[in-house]
Amino acid sequence: MPQKYTIGIDFGTQSGRAVLVELGTARELATAVFVYPHGVMDEKLPNGRPLMPDWALEHPQDYIDVLTTTVPQVVRESGVDPKDIIGVAIDFTACTMLGVDKNGQPLCFDPAWEDDPHSYVKLWKHHAAQDEANKLNRIAAERGEKFLARYGGKISSEWMFPKIMQVLDEDPACYDACARFMEATDWVTMQMTGVERRNSCTAGYKAMWHKKEGYPSKEFFKALDPRLENVIEEKMGTEIYPLGSKAGELIPEMAEKMGLLPGTAVAVANVDAHVTVPAVGITGPGKLLMIMGTSTCHILVGTEERIVPGMCGVVEDGVLPGLPGYEAGQSCVGDHFEWFVENCVPAAYERAAQEAGVNIHQYLTDKASKLAIGESGLVALDWWNGNRSVLVDVDLTGLLIGCTLLTKPEEIYRALIEATAYGTRMIVDNFVEHGVPVDELYAAGGIAQKNALMMQIYADVTNREIRIAASAQAPAVGSAMHAAVAAGRERGGYDSIVEAAQEMGRVMEHVYRPIPENVKKYERLYQEYKILHDTFGRGANDVMKRLKAIREEAIAGK
Amino acid sequence: MPQKYTIGIDFGTQSGRAVLVELGTARELATAVFVYPHGVMDEKLPNGRPLMPDWALEHPQDYIDVLTTTVPQVVRESGVDPKDIIGVAIDFTACTMLGVDKNGQPLCFDPAWEDDPHSYVKLWKHHAAQDEANKLNRIAAERGEKFLARYGGKISSEWMFPKIMQVLDEDPACYDACARFMEATDWVTMQMTGVERRNSCTAGYKAMWHKKEGYPSKEFFKALDPRLENVIEEKMGTEIYPLGSKAGELIPEMAEKMGLLPGTAVAVANVDAHVTVPAVGITGPGKLLMIMGTSTCHILVGTEERIVPGMCGVVEDGVLPGLPGYEAGQSCVGDHFEWFVENCVPAAYERAAQEAGVNIHQYLTDKASKLAIGESGLVALDWWNGNRSVLVDVDLTGLLIGCTLLTKPEEIYRALIEATAYGTRMIVDNFVEHGVPVDELYAAGGIAQKNALMMQIYADVTNREIRIAASAQAPAVGSAMHAAVAAGRERGGYDSIVEAAQEMGRVMEHVYRPIPENVKKYERLYQEYKILHDTFGRGANDVMKRLKAIREEAIAGK
Repeated sequence: MPQKYTIGIDFGTQSGRAVLVELGTARELATAVFVYPHGVMDEKLPNGRPLMPDWALEHPQDYIDVLTTTVPQVVRESGVDPKDIIGVAIDFTACTMLGVDKNGQPLCFDPAWEDDPHSYVKLWKHHAAQDEANKLNRIAAERGEKFLARYGGKISSEWMFPKIMQVLDEDPACYDACARFMEATDWVTMQMTGVERRNSCTAGYKAMWHKKEGYPSKEFFKALDPRLENVIEEKMGTEIYPLGSKAGELIPEMAEKMGLLPGTAVAVANVDAHVTVPAVGITGPGKLLMIMGTSTCHILVGTEERIVPGMCGVVEDGVLPGLPGYEAGQSCVGDHFEWFVENCVPAAYERAAQEAGVNIHQYLTDKASKLAIGESGLVALDWWNGNRSVLVDVDLTGLLIGCTLLTKPEEIYRALIEATAYGTRMIVDNFVEHGVPVDELYAAGGIAQKNALMMQIYADVTNREIRIAASAQAPAVGSAMHAAVAAGRERGGYDSIVEAAQEMGRVMEHVYRPIPENVKKYERLYQEYKILHDTFGRGANDVMKRLKAIREEAIAGK
Repeated sequence: MPQKYTIGIDFGTQSGRAVLVELGTARELATAVFVYPHGVMDEKLPNGRPLMPDWALEHPQDYIDVLTTTVPQVVRESGVDPKDIIGVAIDFTACTMLGVDKNGQPLCFDPAWEDDPHSYVKLWKHHAAQDEANKLNRIAAERGEKFLARYGGKISSEWMFPKIMQVLDEDPACYDACARFMEATDWVTMQMTGVERRNSCTAGYKAMWHKKEGYPSKEFFKALDPRLENVIEEKMGTEIYPLGSKAGELIPEMAEKMGLLPGTAVAVANVDAHVTVPAVGITGPGKLLMIMGTSTCHILVGTEERIVPGMCGVVEDGVLPGLPGYEAGQSCVGDHFEWFVENCVPAAYERAAQEAGVNIHQYLTDKASKLAIGESGLVALDWWNGNRSVLVDVDLTGLLIGCTLLTKPEEIYRALIEATAYGTRMIVDNFVEHGVPVDELYAAGGIAQKNALMMQIYADVTNREIRIAASAQAPAVGSAMHAAVAAGRERGGYDSIVEAAQEMGRVMEHVYRPIPENVKKYERLYQEYKILHDTFGRGANDVMKRLKAIREEAIAGK
């Protein structure tokens, strides 16, 4: 059989990116990026209609344009014959959702609805459904709903049902006009296959679905709102497909537009973080993958389902088939450093970086790497964007302690790096304490590949080895691997994602190993972080929340 | 009697400044500044010999040069006939001390000693006597010495006896060669009069002297070191003169060099902060004066001596005759803002300030003044340089809480301003709680005169009116008033400093008055500050100290 290929497409917040991958070697033959023409709509609709604060929409046409632009491009650039491209699969941000009519068309495609903000895609970071999330959490807690514990005790306003509830609350006509509510990742996949096949990952992590227990009960939904009693049957559908399974085959119309053959296998859709696990070769328990970007998402596979407080979710089939996949998160990692360079770096440092010909992050990192552990005298709580795991509290804020008149910018910068490492350690320890082992770490994303100081600090703080994803496009490569599984061995693909991961998973040669002397030093500092973490995060001193409440009053009163 | 004048000379850290003042009106006819040619010697002696860390020396010749340069200049510029200049007086930083031989000559004037660092003036911020201070505090506490309570429970390493002990410990030959140890302010005054007349202010605040109880006992000094048993009689002298009294008259030799008449009255020396009290017209209890610079010194007069924990000292005759004068301090005020602009202000802000043609402090203040109270969501602990009052703990460090990804530089800047206001409120409340009333505030110094936002915040946080010194040279004017008292009414001066203050004290027309709505808002924020203050400052969580200890180990291990 001649060499076979698949295409993975990663839909990010601002753009989509296709990678054409050689099966077996995982060689990336071509990459193409398409920036969404509408971008993130957080101020106004395409027609200029202003949006309320906390809204974040996207236009679904942009996603289709990614498919029809990037895929032909990678096929052309790679020179691969489309008949040797045996599968295609996508991954997406989540929960990024939309309502569609009975024909599967987004409501915003209909001129009758295009002026209605609820007719567009609600992006993962649409934060206007907080009231609905609060209501959902309150009622679920009052009713003693078991599912809450699987989500660290709290359903996020970013997830599927708060977003659906917002449509119903604010725009019941739109709610009625929506025949289905779908994850964008499932909807885009449906555009390729013509059939609706929902994936187990978003269903489990974002829509409260459980492989054995299904969705929450009708009684629960009725308690939220009588009109929601039958929301699952009416608007969602109960058939959920595991990752790597085949969603269908490319329909002729889309095959033509994408420059592929009709009948090419299309995998069930996936989520950007979770799809990365096989790309680094993880095939079983004990290996925690950190997908590091503006925030960090932690994915870990276990052997049995355990309730771990403060995680984002545990879903069987959510990452690897037949195993419970755990997700945890840190809300502020890259964002932290961006905030710092935008707001706190003096002109003299910017000039020096320019003169040295390095970017400011590199300049600060170089200076920070010359500091001894503990030399800054600083510890930070990395809560500039709240705390996801393990405290699940958006109202927590950042703290910096230990400042003196000698404190330098690179010391604060390093303290922020260390704070994110302590936050990761907190997550790792929390998994271990609740019976889910973590033996080693993996990391993907630009920060992980570029910042050796940061990765060594993570290794020292967690006292664990860290392996780094070899690919700069690890999510797209992971999608391409899922596409190969959807195609199956007979057509030159794989029987399972584990098999694909064993053969195609790639990490960089350099492994970050904990340095015993550093581990000891960081242990002392971590204990200080932990005291501060528990003081301000677990109710002993709720000053952060009170200050936030005062802040909101102050802004409202302006 | 024709119009009379006096000259006040303020000796700062980097320079000395003379002001010729018209009695009655307090009009400043001429001002002259002389920058010390040797500056602060904190790296090497004049001969290039390097100094250890924490040393800070000055050269006493610079002080004499101030007298012989600035005084003739103000006489000339003002056109005043020297026979109408009836007095001269000085104020100084403290404890700034030196050892002199039996002729009153500084040891460093003697070529035999000029290579010895201990032969020079130890400036107030010479911090190399910490070991000696620790020993003194430990032994005083063990012996239950009553005097400790008058100094907030702790003698500072900056003060007279730790500095003397350092000479003895490190350089006993130099100790033996010193016939006297003197405050520089007393020594410079002695150069003008030819007689040693020590002032009650430095004796009380810096040398543990008490009007009724005198110095600590021989037994105490013997416990410190047997060689110190008779240090008071041998090296200090027990005659102490109240402020405003006459130290003597200008000797012919100095009169000629200074362009004044021999016999001109010279007042007992004083300290820069304390001498400012009459310059703003304070003549009795209840009015707290803040002298605001890199740090803030608080001076308050009471009616009876009370023990107020955390103050720097209480001294009868220390400020106004016959009344106990209280001193408290905040270690980091202007220094705070300097640190911030040097380390934390982004290039974009610097450019914008330049384009707007304002300095960066003004630019940040303008932006900060547009914020509503509480809008930043931030609270800081103003301990970048430790905490003097009320915690008396140099090992405390700065804290910032409430950071988010939206936090802007001007919000941090305002949080630092507010933190210093909360620190002042803590000092005010502490005085009141311990029976020393504070009814209104006065402020002197550049910050107080220039920063209206800051002064309004202080008024709102403390819920007290604030009056601002009219003179930019308030200490020198205060000295000139003391000079007028030393001259006496018969020669055209005053009978008492109270009388001089009533007639010549000047504040600006604008009074900062608390705005009730703001007071209410700041009350809530102050309560949060107080919780953090007590948590980190009173032993509930000693993380700052542990981090500082780790920091010192890290630096030592480098």
